[in-house]
Amino acid sequence: MDPHKPHDVIRRAFQQARTFVLVSHVSPDGDAVGSLLGLGWALRAQGKQVALVLADPVPENLRFLPAAETIQSRAQQRPDLVVAVDCGDRSRVGDALPANWAVDVNIDHHKTNTHFGRYNVVEPDAPSTTAIIAEHLADWGLPLPRESALALLTGLITDTLGLRAPTVRPETLRLAARLMEAGADISLAFYEAMVAKSFAMTRYLGIGQARAQLIEGVVWSYLTRADREATGFPEPDDAGLVNHLLNVREASISVVLIELDEPGRIKVSWRAKEGWDVGELARSFGGGGHTAAAGARVEGTLDQVREQVLARTVQFYRTRTL
Amino acid sequence: MDPHKPHDVIRRAFQQARTFVLVSHVSPDGDAVGSLLGLGWALRAQGKQVALVLADPVPENLRFLPAAETIQSRAQQRPDLVVAVDCGDRSRVGDALPANWAVDVNIDHHKTNTHFGRYNVVEPDAPSTTAIIAEHLADWGLPLPRESALALLTGLITDTLGLRAPTVRPETLRLAARLMEAGADISLAFYEAMVAKSFAMTRYLGIGQARAQLIEGVVWSYLTRADREATGFPEPDDAGLVNHLLNVREASISVVLIELDEPGRIKVSWRAKEGWDVGELARSFGGGGHTAAAGARVEGTLDQVREQVLARTVQFYRTRTL
Repeated sequence: MDPHKPHDVIRRAFQQARTFVLVSHVSPDGDAVGSLLGLGWALRAQGKQVALVLADPVPENLRFLPAAETIQSRAQQRPDLVVAVDCGDRSRVGDALPANWAVDVNIDHHKTNTHFGRYNVVEPDAPSTTAIIAEHLADWGLPLPRESALALLTGLITDTLGLRAPTVRPETLRLAARLMEAGADISLAFYEAMVAKSFAMTRYLGIGQARAQLIEGVVWSYLTRADREATGFPEPDDAGLVNHLLNVREASISVVLIELDEPGRIKVSWRAKEGWDVGELARSFGGGGHTAAAGARVEGTLDQVREQVLARTVQFYRTRTL
Repeated sequence: MDPHKPHDVIRRAFQQARTFVLVSHVSPDGDAVGSLLGLGWALRAQGKQVALVLADPVPENLRFLPAAETIQSRAQQRPDLVVAVDCGDRSRVGDALPANWAVDVNIDHHKTNTHFGRYNVVEPDAPSTTAIIAEHLADWGLPLPRESALALLTGLITDTLGLRAPTVRPETLRLAARLMEAGADISLAFYEAMVAKSFAMTRYLGIGQARAQLIEGVVWSYLTRADREATGFPEPDDAGLVNHLLNVREASISVVLIELDEPGRIKVSWRAKEGWDVGELARSFGGGGHTAAAGARVEGTLDQVREQVLARTVQFYRTRTL
């Protein structure tokens, strides 16, 4: 691809192709689903035949997006063009594509993107992949139907934590304004994707919050199988509790322990404000992650794991502040 | 005031005056404090002598705003110009002004504004009073220093529930973009004003959430004096629990009962999604409010009041849906 005219090349590829498979990553989030549906509606509006695929189900908070229910778990027939959105590397698509299919167009905003496509539109400064798609739809010869606008705005909102991440710039808000003008309801996108919660999740999170303890700058809590049974919350995860707890003013690090469904294994999640690298902490427990967000699975009972994790986390909090 | 040139008149008044008192409403929120500081910093940048007054203290989540600590509880000396911001009527200033002082300039976005000022800038379609100030600073001959921009953006964000209320229009986002360009840190404004919570509030809210019950479309909970003692939460209020609970997908009405510090009195708060008028419900208990938000204080023990309130609320939920 001529790096000076990448969008002309993609415009031609999109014009010539009749059938498309669009794919995004495993454990899809708002940017994955929003990119898939945003580009999908635009191509369909041009009369293209488009299959949308995701290896894992669409999360509950994104099912309000028009055509979310048409997303399939695996591509069936090799199309003219395979487009991956919001995937840092080829393996992120999981089982959604047959292993021997090449990706033709790779559209993504992750810094670590491996340029695995035949054509690559990688913009690491973009706040979301939906923002890249919204900015370039016209360059690619595509319209912006209102269903696209809603999906793209939803991805922009969720990937910026509700327009409040450090990646938000004045242009980000102007892009959101243009998506509203194209018909996207910002109140609906915020409410459905970020604000509304099931009754079960509300109670499950509440139990974790009520139980929180503060040790110096470390806020921690736990959630058990019994809590999931009592509230009807279905997934053996923390429902976002560890992120909530990091919003405690007095805390610099948050830790949540989750009793998994199989006995004797505890999932530990850490989050940190600036100045602490919890990735290091997670690696010392055999896990992994980044500076600000990390996790590990640790063998033992809740009591055993809690004791080790808290001792090491508080020690880590202290030495990093010394 | 010539209605065709209102801003010219205000520009002249601001130019001629040397001393100002700026005031906003009792129980100040983000738009009250943001308007006060936003206009205050702009006038001070022009060399004006400005006193900022509020009858009640600045809430914790707004104390990060520069000069918030300079706000006084009562005006001392009659200035050249008294400016009220975000007040629907004169009485909203509470004790912050001597009762016999007239208000010269009244800047507000409430539909019900009584035009109590000598000059009135009332724009009911504006999403916040800070938005009116931001739009007209230049018309009034005033600059937009970065401290003003942060205060004005904070008022805009809080009065739109984080840029997600139905009052948000494309121009609202473009205004927020301009405030960012003037130096306002949107991540900071969101985090401090809307996201960060004290450890005590986190646990107090968690207790209320964990205890929530769902009866048909009514989600309800309660908080007691003992809960405040256990968590250290200082105020006999619900810390926003009733708003949180309305975000439960399965619920149309939320109700929270708060045991007050004086025995035998319960504070009841209702919130409703579209289609129910909880103001009516609150009035049947001797309280008041609007369609979507209402409250009452009811005599009795928590058990007694709970029984009455739930019976009537569930009945009301059913009949409104029949």
